[in-house]
Amino acid sequence: MDTSMAPPADVSNLQRIKHKLVRPPMVHAHDEVAPGEPRIVEFEMQIVEKEIEVDDGVYLQAMTFHGSIPGPLMVVHEGDYVELTLYNSPENMLQHNIDFHAATGALGGGSLTLVNPGEKTVLRFKATRPGTFVYHCAPGGPMIPWHVVSGMSGAIMVLPRDGLKDHEGNSVRYDRVFYIGENDFYIPKDENGDYKRFEDVGESYPDTLEVMNGLIPSHVVFNGKVGSLTGDNALHASQGEKVLFVHSQANRDTRPHLIGGHGDLVWERGKFNNPPQRDLETWFIAGGSAGAALYEFLQPGVYAYVNHNLIEAVNLGATAHVVVDGDWNNDLMEQVQAPAEYNANYEGKTALP
Amino acid sequence: MDTSMAPPADVSNLQRIKHKLVRPPMVHAHDEVAPGEPRIVEFEMQIVEKEIEVDDGVYLQAMTFHGSIPGPLMVVHEGDYVELTLYNSPENMLQHNIDFHAATGALGGGSLTLVNPGEKTVLRFKATRPGTFVYHCAPGGPMIPWHVVSGMSGAIMVLPRDGLKDHEGNSVRYDRVFYIGENDFYIPKDENGDYKRFEDVGESYPDTLEVMNGLIPSHVVFNGKVGSLTGDNALHASQGEKVLFVHSQANRDTRPHLIGGHGDLVWERGKFNNPPQRDLETWFIAGGSAGAALYEFLQPGVYAYVNHNLIEAVNLGATAHVVVDGDWNNDLMEQVQAPAEYNANYEGKTALP
Amino acid sequence: MDTSMAPPADVSNLQRIKHKLVRPPMVHAHDEVAPGEPRIVEFEMQIVEKEIEVDDGVYLQAMTFHGSIPGPLMVVHEGDYVELTLYNSPENMLQHNIDFHAATGALGGGSLTLVNPGEKTVLRFKATRPGTFVYHCAPGGPMIPWHVVSGMSGAIMVLPRDGLKDHEGNSVRYDRVFYIGENDFYIPKDENGDYKRFEDVGESYPDTLEVMNGLIPSHVVFNGKVGSLTGDNALHASQGEKVLFVHSQANRDTRPHLIGGHGDLVWERGKFNNPPQRDLETWFIAGGSAGAALYEFLQPGVYAYVNHNLIEAVNLGATAHVVVDGDWNNDLMEQVQAPAEYNANYEGKTALP
Ligand SMILES: [Cu+2]
Ligand SMILES: [Cu+2]
Ligand SMILES: [Cu+2]
Ligand SMILES: [Cu+2]
Ligand SMILES: [Cu+2]
Ligand SMILES: [Cu+2]
Ligand SMILES: [Mg+2]
Ligand SMILES: [Mg+2]
Ligand SMILES: [Mg+2]
Ligand SMILES: [Mg+2]
Ligand SMILES: [Mg+2]
Ligand SMILES: [Mg+2]
Ligand SMILES: [Mg+2]
Ligand SMILES: [Mg+2]
Ligand SMILES: [Mg+2]
Repeated sequence: MDTSMAPPADVSNLQRIKHKLVRPPMVHAHDEVAPGEPRIVEFEMQIVEKEIEVDDGVYLQAMTFHGSIPGPLMVVHEGDYVELTLYNSPENMLQHNIDFHAATGALGGGSLTLVNPGEKTVLRFKATRPGTFVYHCAPGGPMIPWHVVSGMSGAIMVLPRDGLKDHEGNSVRYDRVFYIGENDFYIPKDENGDYKRFEDVGESYPDTLEVMNGLIPSHVVFNGKVGSLTGDNALHASQGEKVLFVHSQANRDTRPHLIGGHGDLVWERGKFNNPPQRDLETWFIAGGSAGAALYEFLQPGVYAYVNHNLIEAVNLGATAHVVVDGDWNNDLMEQVQAPAEYNANYEGKTALP
Repeated sequence: MDTSMAPPADVSNLQRIKHKLVRPPMVHAHDEVAPGEPRIVEFEMQIVEKEIEVDDGVYLQAMTFHGSIPGPLMVVHEGDYVELTLYNSPENMLQHNIDFHAATGALGGGSLTLVNPGEKTVLRFKATRPGTFVYHCAPGGPMIPWHVVSGMSGAIMVLPRDGLKDHEGNSVRYDRVFYIGENDFYIPKDENGDYKRFEDVGESYPDTLEVMNGLIPSHVVFNGKVGSLTGDNALHASQGEKVLFVHSQANRDTRPHLIGGHGDLVWERGKFNNPPQRDLETWFIAGGSAGAALYEFLQPGVYAYVNHNLIEAVNLGATAHVVVDGDWNNDLMEQVQAPAEYNANYEGKTALP
Repeated sequence: MDTSMAPPADVSNLQRIKHKLVRPPMVHAHDEVAPGEPRIVEFEMQIVEKEIEVDDGVYLQAMTFHGSIPGPLMVVHEGDYVELTLYNSPENMLQHNIDFHAATGALGGGSLTLVNPGEKTVLRFKATRPGTFVYHCAPGGPMIPWHVVSGMSGAIMVLPRDGLKDHEGNSVRYDRVFYIGENDFYIPKDENGDYKRFEDVGESYPDTLEVMNGLIPSHVVFNGKVGSLTGDNALHASQGEKVLFVHSQANRDTRPHLIGGHGDLVWERGKFNNPPQRDLETWFIAGGSAGAALYEFLQPGVYAYVNHNLIEAVNLGATAHVVVDGDWNNDLMEQVQAPAEYNANYEGKTALP
């Protein structure tokens, strides 16, 4: 796309603000309601190619935005201009770019940002539609799916200027926001059935391509690694807090579910001009999109947040934990009788099917 | 989850009612509109491990709630308390529990109900959100997907106290309700390509796990068996009747379709606080959820109700039949000319592409 | 279904109009707003069995409605009667029929239209629900999925009499409409890993069935062939034009995305009585349904329209191109700095994660 003949936009009157991106599941500080007029919001990102361990002893020749899988969540407001400086480190081997689903034209910016190792570029686009949107690398042809399943995707959240609204148009706030990026990995196995490890990203391509084209991932993970959000890495919240979960999947469908919780307000397709759905047990994110769900935690305890294809959640890796402190409410749920032995000769006859 | 320090809920003023669960696709008798104040609704369920024939000559070491796949549909009203007594028969081999997607906290009750063979437990929870919701066994780790794909799931329908509403908020009633539980089975094959049969559920685990982790089921069935709702087992209705189809899939996405019919009002995610969609040809149930569709039958005949991945419907098993009596209406559809030979030398030339 | 005892409908007062079907992605001329009272809209279709090349050197023994994959889009208005004359050419080998998801009863017409080679039939049905709907062949048992994945599906668009409406009920018009039918093909390979070619459709069945039942397609394509809508075959539009994309998939889920564009108004399930969603990055079409998305092109350039499982889009074939002329708008997106070398010793340090 040659845009060199078009007159430049005059943005000289706009204020500028710069946000430093942070590693998911965390999100950089931001206002829920825009503090004033539209601004230019600046971000900087480095592309980092590196090997990562996606499960115990299982290695991926990964490609990343800013060193993390997923890339960091950017937050702006509708009407703001996003100005991204993108660096492709000279230590990398490959060409990369960035396609923002939130942007308009030029393959989402992909055709204006193709950088070789050692190059940088600056792209500015106007965030005209409120919602959560995927961004990803899309350097052309079969490089597109390969870079994406190698880790190169993230998301941006474009908040309405006056913040989120519920199904009736009333304002809603969140106390915390977590960004969960889900990835499908296609790690090849050797003839013994062991996962192969490769010297570099180029060497990994032919075998990986063959697994990819079979459409069945070897791993489905949150935030780049089995266990990246469980145990010591769990998310934390408190009873009564409202938590916004932004969930992206750049390639493959998923169905988030919070075990023991719900989606109070869910934007399945992630776009805030649409009224949210209520009370969902499970929501559905189409491959190539980002959705958002708001939940007020009503009980303490450890919650699992999963892709509710339970094979993918438990056996392939798509599980996170949320640890919530507070006081148990027996009105909502009570263990009337703890598990205990019964005498099957006398009890349970009325329960027989 | 240790809830023993929390003060017990005072439910002494609430009336109690007990429903005996019935085998799907049937549903226990219930009021569409709640007859009065919230009550405690008691249910009893037995967990039954047993071998079942899921297709001619194909056997599954199954685990079931109450002997059926899916487990029975429970029906209550928003604001009611569900009180379940769960028995794990001493004849079983495994630990089980129950996770209600309709419940709040403690992994949906899963962490309060883990029963060994020969144990029982009683759980009470408040049904705070109207809709159709999955329940399933979730005894921890890789046992979770295994128990689910072995048959341990069912659903509960929490009706609004004043009954269902259409997209404009007007009351709607149903004449019949059918509960269809869809399952993905992963039956291993031997070296000759024949389905393997196992001595017991434990023996079936390693091979089944390997098939499961490939994410491609060998069978996709309604109500536990190829043909469980076809032919002599077909569902029945009459022209002019409004039928509510509750459809759950605890693990894998599905797309119900009624051949020759429609969803007049469809709650794809199953939650009744959301306005239903109208006129759907096919609806989409996310794995780990239950949806509901209301249809008034306008024509007599045999309808097929399918998962509209037609390979899954026809070759893997996901088909049901609904036999509807009544009088054919030629205004809606007329066979203007029955199939008959034509002379291709003279006719059909104008039809050539 | 024997409907011979029912009194015929009196349609003698209705005007008739006949539309000649055209090859997708094009759509026959039609009014967006109905010009008057409901009419009988006549169509003629030939069923054509033939071998087609679905990718370079990859052949399918195809079955088609009217010679194309997908079959042509029919357009009528709510309340109109569709009257189809269906010819099964004497040169064909197989029985076929047609099941309209838009129709009511008799398996969508399937049980009234089963024609042997050399036979024709005429079916009339009333289009009572506005929306986009799949039609497909469904000749019974395992022939159903086989005929569908061999190419026998298309769609009908039933417009509201007063045209399309946005989320607030305001009228919307489109300048162009394209019909994109997506297909999953299951081409068998020989022992060398090369795609097999068959003498005739019957010979292709056993091997194809085996691939089908594994649920993983070898090809996922738009309009019957890898590249059918790219390069020289690209779609065309102009900046400022509103384009309606009708997208059907008769068997398998898909998730359309327009790279660099959006769905301004999207009917994911395709039914126009429901308010459309806004601003979607990606939408989700359930297998066995047709959806519709309206987009006003705001920037010139080449857009890719893809199934955003990017493996399916790029490696399996599900990509189309839209070439849009006009003037680039730097306010929406500007290449602030074209890709250029930077000095990593001095620059980009603040961008390090
Ligand atoms: Cu890249
Ligand atoms: Cu994309
Ligand atoms: Cu169990
Ligand atoms: Cu669950
Ligand atoms: Cu056919
Ligand atoms: Cu169909
Ligand atoms: Mg807008
Ligand atoms: Mg939305
Ligand atoms: Mg593991
Ligand atoms: Mg509520
Ligand atoms: Mg009634
Ligand atoms: Mg709903
Ligand atoms: Mg069979
Ligand atoms: Mg719709
Ligand atoms: Mg190819």
